[in-house]
Amino acid sequence: MEKIAYLGPEGTFSELAATAFTKSAERLPYRDISSCLQALAKKEVDGAVVPLENTIEGSVNITLDHLVHKHDLPIVGELAIPVAQHLLVHPQNADQSMGIVYSHPHALAQCHDYLSKHLSGAEWMHASSTAKAAKEIAENPSLNRAVIANRLAAKTYGLAITAENIHDFANNHTRFVLLSTRKTQNDPSVEARPSVNRKTTIVVTLPSDYSGALHQVLSAFAWRKLNLSKIESRPMKTGIGHYFFIIDIDHAYDDVLVPGALEEIKAIGCATRLLGSYPSAVIHEENEMESTI
Amino acid sequence: MEKIAYLGPEGTFSELAATAFTKSAERLPYRDISSCLQALAKKEVDGAVVPLENTIEGSVNITLDHLVHKHDLPIVGELAIPVAQHLLVHPQNADQSMGIVYSHPHALAQCHDYLSKHLSGAEWMHASSTAKAAKEIAENPSLNRAVIANRLAAKTYGLAITAENIHDFANNHTRFVLLSTRKTQNDPSVEARPSVNRKTTIVVTLPSDYSGALHQVLSAFAWRKLNLSKIESRPMKTGIGHYFFIIDIDHAYDDVLVPGALEEIKAIGCATRLLGSYPSAVIHEENEMESTI
Repeated sequence: MEKIAYLGPEGTFSELAATAFTKSAERLPYRDISSCLQALAKKEVDGAVVPLENTIEGSVNITLDHLVHKHDLPIVGELAIPVAQHLLVHPQNADQSMGIVYSHPHALAQCHDYLSKHLSGAEWMHASSTAKAAKEIAENPSLNRAVIANRLAAKTYGLAITAENIHDFANNHTRFVLLSTRKTQNDPSVEARPSVNRKTTIVVTLPSDYSGALHQVLSAFAWRKLNLSKIESRPMKTGIGHYFFIIDIDHAYDDVLVPGALEEIKAIGCATRLLGSYPSAVIHEENEMESTI
Repeated sequence: MEKIAYLGPEGTFSELAATAFTKSAERLPYRDISSCLQALAKKEVDGAVVPLENTIEGSVNITLDHLVHKHDLPIVGELAIPVAQHLLVHPQNADQSMGIVYSHPHALAQCHDYLSKHLSGAEWMHASSTAKAAKEIAENPSLNRAVIANRLAAKTYGLAITAENIHDFANNHTRFVLLSTRKTQNDPSVEARPSVNRKTTIVVTLPSDYSGALHQVLSAFAWRKLNLSKIESRPMKTGIGHYFFIIDIDHAYDDVLVPGALEEIKAIGCATRLLGSYPSAVIHEENEMESTI
């Protein structure tokens, strides 16, 4: 791949994920998830990296809804990367205490315990992304603000890290997916990572609202002993109580048992759609990010 | 009930829902969902009305997470109310076209088609709630802004409605729940509404990650022909792939078959918790809101 779109600006966790997928591609920041996916749909880029789910917050609904309702962009790879948050200030202010902590509302929430203990007097101010907050502080050293962002943002915008790993939950990871409509020899390869799994993600719409329809769908997987790593309901947007399901199967699409299960689900009247069958890996610690492919 | 907390400020959809639950109680606005629930936990109020799920956006994760992780506040009633959005301006500006449309990002998104057709030149500006946007415009008539908000906000802040029902999806409803720790004779009664259902909401945590665990849970309901109106996975916050499930059963907790199903689920090693067993009703059209209890 030559060009990869990611959720910008420079220094976001999406850019961190994009570098973990491949260091050789040109990375292009887009202002929101919708623009990333549109850029790929219009073939301005060869791939797009977007967040799908966070350990703490849950699914990124806008990504799911776009993949299900708006675009037909296959998932070709997945990486779960650690969300390590740090406290950054402009290097001019490295020895001063700041009156305001500035970041994305999720990042502030993720560091709630640290902020209560060590910066209880500071005011919280919301930014539209952690990287954007870092960029603003870099450009305006006179602002009395500390920023919560990742290590890449500190490096990108030349900020000093005054406290490391200030996030409350140690197991805070975000699953990022790489979407692409074409495959070339130079593709980034999640397969090269240690302990890689194969996953298949499908969308299932039940035939009608009757008792046990979902149970019947799950039966098709259960008696084949196919493990599901996730099942999530999302609204159809047609009325309260109308849902479709997004199911992650812990097997490749060409696993001998998977096509049979999907045929069985169709036979009972469900609509199914494949979002992708792809390699998936977890990067456990932030320091493993430097040794990326 | 004498005092009910709701997600403020005055004129929000939460206040609309609170009036639909009961007109006799004093309604107290709180600045966020967390504060509403805390007020109830501290017994500052007798009940709290918070959004649980929207037809378009899906679940309100912060409400679910608070009910599961932070508080033990039973759901005692549920109403799905229609989300009808209107375009409002200060009455001084009723004949002028506004250069800015100001509202909560979800409200702007919900009116995307209308805005593209009729106000394509206008800039979008984000507010933290539809009612807050309305309040600000009421206090600052010189601002060149139209607001998207509901009819109650127009009435509360004395704004003129220049376009009605500008939301894209006709079936846009939000489920609001009433939480309360005590029951009195004068309680608001969803039971008095037409076509009321009984619902039971439980949280299920699976014993360990083995193939078909969720299938086994659903079997307990399926063979008893107990209908589930919703099943949703939420992260445990302990790592990627660790979930609990929130399940809505379309039956009362004292339905003869429900306790047996729950016993069976416990017997296979699942933890279960009751979030509430309560009457539930849908208000289909905005004009039914005037004829509330």
